[in-house]
Amino acid sequence: MNSFIYDIPVKVYFGENQLQHLGKELSKFGKRVLLTYGGGSIKKTGLYDTVMSEIEKNGLEVFELSGIEPNPRIESVRKGVRICKDEKIDVLLAVGGGSTLDATKFMAAGACVEHDPWEFLSENWAPIEKALPVITVLTLAATGSEMDAGGVISNPETQDKIGRLAPPMLPKVSFLDPTLTYTVSPYQTACGAADMMSHIMEVYFNMEQDLYMLDCFMEGMMRTIIKYAPIAMREPKNYEARANLMWTSSWAINGFVNGGKRQAWSCHPMEHELSAIYDITHGLGLAILTPRWMEYCLDESTVSKYVQFGVNVFGIDERQEPMVIARQSIEKLSEFLFGTLGLKRTFTEVGIRAEDFPVMARKACGNGVLPGFKPLAQEDIERIFEMCQ
Amino acid sequence: MNSFIYDIPVKVYFGENQLQHLGKELSKFGKRVLLTYGGGSIKKTGLYDTVMSEIEKNGLEVFELSGIEPNPRIESVRKGVRICKDEKIDVLLAVGGGSTLDATKFMAAGACVEHDPWEFLSENWAPIEKALPVITVLTLAATGSEMDAGGVISNPETQDKIGRLAPPMLPKVSFLDPTLTYTVSPYQTACGAADMMSHIMEVYFNMEQDLYMLDCFMEGMMRTIIKYAPIAMREPKNYEARANLMWTSSWAINGFVNGGKRQAWSCHPMEHELSAIYDITHGLGLAILTPRWMEYCLDESTVSKYVQFGVNVFGIDERQEPMVIARQSIEKLSEFLFGTLGLKRTFTEVGIRAEDFPVMARKACGNGVLPGFKPLAQEDIERIFEMCQ
Repeated sequence: MNSFIYDIPVKVYFGENQLQHLGKELSKFGKRVLLTYGGGSIKKTGLYDTVMSEIEKNGLEVFELSGIEPNPRIESVRKGVRICKDEKIDVLLAVGGGSTLDATKFMAAGACVEHDPWEFLSENWAPIEKALPVITVLTLAATGSEMDAGGVISNPETQDKIGRLAPPMLPKVSFLDPTLTYTVSPYQTACGAADMMSHIMEVYFNMEQDLYMLDCFMEGMMRTIIKYAPIAMREPKNYEARANLMWTSSWAINGFVNGGKRQAWSCHPMEHELSAIYDITHGLGLAILTPRWMEYCLDESTVSKYVQFGVNVFGIDERQEPMVIARQSIEKLSEFLFGTLGLKRTFTEVGIRAEDFPVMARKACGNGVLPGFKPLAQEDIERIFEMCQ
Repeated sequence: MNSFIYDIPVKVYFGENQLQHLGKELSKFGKRVLLTYGGGSIKKTGLYDTVMSEIEKNGLEVFELSGIEPNPRIESVRKGVRICKDEKIDVLLAVGGGSTLDATKFMAAGACVEHDPWEFLSENWAPIEKALPVITVLTLAATGSEMDAGGVISNPETQDKIGRLAPPMLPKVSFLDPTLTYTVSPYQTACGAADMMSHIMEVYFNMEQDLYMLDCFMEGMMRTIIKYAPIAMREPKNYEARANLMWTSSWAINGFVNGGKRQAWSCHPMEHELSAIYDITHGLGLAILTPRWMEYCLDESTVSKYVQFGVNVFGIDERQEPMVIARQSIEKLSEFLFGTLGLKRTFTEVGIRAEDFPVMARKACGNGVLPGFKPLAQEDIERIFEMCQ
């Protein structure tokens, strides 16, 4: 069992009407605020007005950057960095889902250096030693960006989509109001649920010895997603469902359940290559990949983890043979993703072409081996892609 | 469902050999350290030498206060406050179990005011607006003081034992090395397990609507305690068992699982009156009280929570009548506490006399009603005490 450091000093306001504290929290960091958001849905829902009124009530000066893309691009980050520098921004306020939050974190880091922010993600891997403070208002339960130090940025010129974690980018304060997700469509709710499931499964499917207590937490979160995602899809304004999904999204990936595990992730690096080229929704890509990856990795050396998953998450009868339980657990997951959540089941349905498999597979394993639950070389990944067809 | 603020910025070094980071962390807060500990067992185990060597390696100046009692007394707090003021202490380092940590927190707060530290706990309830920084090295998994902002202090003169939470007293950094609990006796391990179970049950037994996800977490922690406490008692150097108990002790009471619940605790206020007079181990008092309190509170309006507890924590067959499951769940808990953990079952066995029931009951409910899972007036509490005989 490995040692670890737990250090997640994000303050979270959880619940309805918490935005009344937004102005006060922003003011702690200064006067000049850069407000970032996506395609403008926050104007339709009235959230933009609420946020602006809180900002103005506290006498803050606000600058705006809108139009951050669903798979956020380095060009948006560059725009944000420019505003931070030109306008001497004190604090960034990201209002949106994971994409807006991710892009804003890199703006905050980029504002503290002279070089182009892509240097943080390119092969140069420039150090991220500081960042301007970031406050977030979350409108989509999925990526967990509201409580972690990471983000993923796309560069269409190089067809790269690269993620990075750096403690200075951790939000100082996040506002999680489940009612702000009432307008999230059933489809996006489903994609968010698939993303959260994957965050947990990337850690849970692991043969390193670690804390039983954390496995219990992960199983509890997976049961929470399985229970509440369909309710939120059917009844978009069900507070209980939205609240459970929202708090789960944060805890699925803030690092807590990882404990001392060192194992790298598998499905996320594979998925990043899909959405780098095809710009599909991250959670959808993960949903298609995950059951096939499970199938590919199942053997005598890994079967015990599938059994634990099947019994504790899906309630499969534990008196059966391990391999039988393992196969049933993959079926149950597929039923959940493609049946209950109604997500598309194959690459073909979302337009991903076999001719791109070799290049995507090669990039996913960085020309070598993708370490993880099972080490995957290019040909393994191509095989998994073929299973997704 | 109520709103809440999550804000637990404690940095935790978890695992073996993490003390090598102690000097660096202390140095962040200054040069002058007050080291606090209990009866001196840390000298026997060699922990004292390890800590001192880390302190000296970093050129810090150290002052010492030893002899902090198992139910820590206000007199020890006063001594610590005096040293902090006289020696211009920058940071306090508490090495021990919950008692040492609790007392040290109040020293840190007392050092910042002119009045006597009992004013924080007496009816005056003096505000706690700041405290010197506290760093902890934990040697006993039980109270969770390493990751919460609270403490409980006894005043033998007034026969009071009073707890209080105040954010400035939250430790800055805690070192959780499971190997430091290898020397904890089976009896103290059992008392610690009973304490943790109670921390969780005080929140879990609650009829307010709250997050299912958090109920899953609590059930996972209770299963963890039930699984690993007996192992740690049998095999004191079982790292896996000690690690699971240690991390569970922190998360049982750091506020996370509470979410937005407003309900007050029941068994803790009752137990504080026992140990205020009889100086018995807190976890033992809780173990005797808890199953009787459950029995007393069971009725048609509360039975559903007992069913959830019995099925999800003890694996009781859910196809039975709710009242049957509820009674079995109380039996299972009693078996665990008095059978598996081997704790004494009655007040008589630990020397608590019936003649003290009225005064202890009156103090537990503060001359009125103890709010909680079921509101308890003096006569209710006396009845529960009688059931413990």
